[in-house]
Amino acid sequence: MIQMAVLGFGTVGGGVVELIDRNQEVIRKTVPQGIHVKYILDLRDFPDSPYNDRVTHDYQDILDDEEITVICETMGGKEPAYTFTKKALERGISVCTSNKELVAAHGPELLQVAKANNCSYLFEASVGGGIPLIRPINACLTQEDITEVFGILNGTTNYILTRMEKNGLSFEEALKEAQQKGYAERNPEADVEGHDACRKIAILSSLISGKTVRYEDIPCEGISRITTADFGYARAMKMAIKLLGVSRKSQDGSLSVRTAPFLVREDHPLHSVQGVFNGVFVHGNMVDDLMFYGRGAGKFPTASAVVSDVMECAKNIGRNISFNWSDEIMTLSDKAEDSYRYFVRVDDSEAAVAAYTFKAANKVSFEGAPDGETAFVTANMTEKEFAEIAKSFKTIKQCIRLLQD
Amino acid sequence: MIQMAVLGFGTVGGGVVELIDRNQEVIRKTVPQGIHVKYILDLRDFPDSPYNDRVTHDYQDILDDEEITVICETMGGKEPAYTFTKKALERGISVCTSNKELVAAHGPELLQVAKANNCSYLFEASVGGGIPLIRPINACLTQEDITEVFGILNGTTNYILTRMEKNGLSFEEALKEAQQKGYAERNPEADVEGHDACRKIAILSSLISGKTVRYEDIPCEGISRITTADFGYARAMKMAIKLLGVSRKSQDGSLSVRTAPFLVREDHPLHSVQGVFNGVFVHGNMVDDLMFYGRGAGKFPTASAVVSDVMECAKNIGRNISFNWSDEIMTLSDKAEDSYRYFVRVDDSEAAVAAYTFKAANKVSFEGAPDGETAFVTANMTEKEFAEIAKSFKTIKQCIRLLQD
Repeated sequence: MIQMAVLGFGTVGGGVVELIDRNQEVIRKTVPQGIHVKYILDLRDFPDSPYNDRVTHDYQDILDDEEITVICETMGGKEPAYTFTKKALERGISVCTSNKELVAAHGPELLQVAKANNCSYLFEASVGGGIPLIRPINACLTQEDITEVFGILNGTTNYILTRMEKNGLSFEEALKEAQQKGYAERNPEADVEGHDACRKIAILSSLISGKTVRYEDIPCEGISRITTADFGYARAMKMAIKLLGVSRKSQDGSLSVRTAPFLVREDHPLHSVQGVFNGVFVHGNMVDDLMFYGRGAGKFPTASAVVSDVMECAKNIGRNISFNWSDEIMTLSDKAEDSYRYFVRVDDSEAAVAAYTFKAANKVSFEGAPDGETAFVTANMTEKEFAEIAKSFKTIKQCIRLLQD
Repeated sequence: MIQMAVLGFGTVGGGVVELIDRNQEVIRKTVPQGIHVKYILDLRDFPDSPYNDRVTHDYQDILDDEEITVICETMGGKEPAYTFTKKALERGISVCTSNKELVAAHGPELLQVAKANNCSYLFEASVGGGIPLIRPINACLTQEDITEVFGILNGTTNYILTRMEKNGLSFEEALKEAQQKGYAERNPEADVEGHDACRKIAILSSLISGKTVRYEDIPCEGISRITTADFGYARAMKMAIKLLGVSRKSQDGSLSVRTAPFLVREDHPLHSVQGVFNGVFVHGNMVDDLMFYGRGAGKFPTASAVVSDVMECAKNIGRNISFNWSDEIMTLSDKAEDSYRYFVRVDDSEAAVAAYTFKAANKVSFEGAPDGETAFVTANMTEKEFAEIAKSFKTIKQCIRLLQD
């Protein structure tokens, strides 16, 4: 029997414990000795839970039990998760985590500690919820020069955008609904301002570059300024508005990374990624385009990814599963040099000059479009050029980048 | 240096050799000693190829070279691929293959030989071209009870269907074009009649059941009877016609498997899988829906999947990578009991009675629909019920199943 512990008995931690119980028979097809959760670490007690007898409040109980070979860290946040993870790894106990904040902040260091102690630090659940993504990148695509990773990395905002698009809800209405359904937190900032997606694209960018991409270095915009009118225009252009994390290698090997809302064409597979689903595109120099799609959040999908890592650890006791991710800081390319086409809305008073200066192609309109404004898509230009031109107009209400092919 | 051999210097074999050369630097990040193709086995010589000095016509040269630890079998067909593969595995040489015919016919036996000899038989490239699919199922989803796998598994037919849908080509025109572009073989039967997709869904069904699903047991229909008029109706219903391999577990654990054209709703992610791309849905009891998307064929995508397996072997010399696939034959559920809604076209003379008997909901029409016929979608019914009713009408021209949710 593989004996393990779960740190944090919240939604994901609870999902891990339940999944291991419910799918024990399936699990034994791969790990014949079975997997058992011996400890649950939490500050609280759970008198109504059938698992309450496994709850401990003292991490030392777990560290001192030599039977424990794997720990699931589903606490979230940097501390005490960081200290707990490091202590476990130093004892040769593998750690599987859903904690993207910790992975983005201390990933390479913890990977190093794991390696030095012949155990593993795995983080499949930190990006893309239940989607097998991190390990496929790390184990199935090492023959590829991955030149691009981009996608819908946050289920909460994708749910909000989908409700705005399909049902005409305002941002505020859709956010409120997402909160009522438990998809968004009471303080939704990390999701709607793009910070969560930003951490995830930082992790993916680190994996494809082999260095550390700091999320603080990534330009980050959220979705709170997207309106229902924007969806009217988007529909007229046969596009959808999606919050994307985008990471692209240039010819010189530098990385351009960004989190922002993008307009996505109807025939692009990300267009039909709806609700709380995530979709992640990966482009390799040989395999071309790949997409990984699935539930980006939720109790059991996320727990599934955590347990997937536990299975991998159980098959590799005493062996380190290595990642190509060093602590060398990756310098990102100058964001002002990124080039895009931009969807722009401007007051009619400035429309003619703006359309001319931005080298706009067709104007965009739809029945019910707000009065007194004009919308168009600019020519391809750098962020710097766009900002230069935009300065000379006072009434630009909106600009959204188009996802290039 | 990992020394390997490639059997068969055709499109995929050539791609493997080139990829290993071009991406050697990338490869060394994971396999620091590097990978080198020491032999290429082919009946032919390639005087114009820079790799001609590695060509041998005698398989024994490879078997007798103790440096060889991995072989790529990219010959296709059952023999001599089967004999060659078995001989290599018996000597402890791992084999990575793109040969779905051989995997579908002898997979469990060859996996057994690999296990007995502490080496591996890997077949990522046998399904879904370059898409990481087989190993994610085998290594990232072992905590899941996978209850469904279905998808677009054949790039040639998806290219043909896409050209018919988007550009109004007839089946014959689209097939001819596919042949000219090298997507379809001169004898296109294996693709257009669904046999290739059928072998692939057999492999996937075996992996999710742990037993052997024989492709001969799977009901199989191709796309040669699909017409441009069908696409007119499909568009009117906001659907696309896709050749799918479908495999579903029933409550009692039995499997229902089928290869056939299906009508797929616009908001289903498979709807936007176009051209030579493949898309494969996997449903697990905890993770819910996943989709894997990418190029289903082509020199470098397929070679990428083969080399992905080579990388895995290189990291696991002397260790067997195991699969849960026994040679016990899986009995499929009675195909007559599968139930669907069906799109039906019938002559106007029989339309009223047919629509009534099939419990049709709305009629379907489009501008330019063929004169003298009526099209509708039936109520949900079993294959058996459908066949019973269909018998009493003489003018049914078409019936296509709708993909259920």
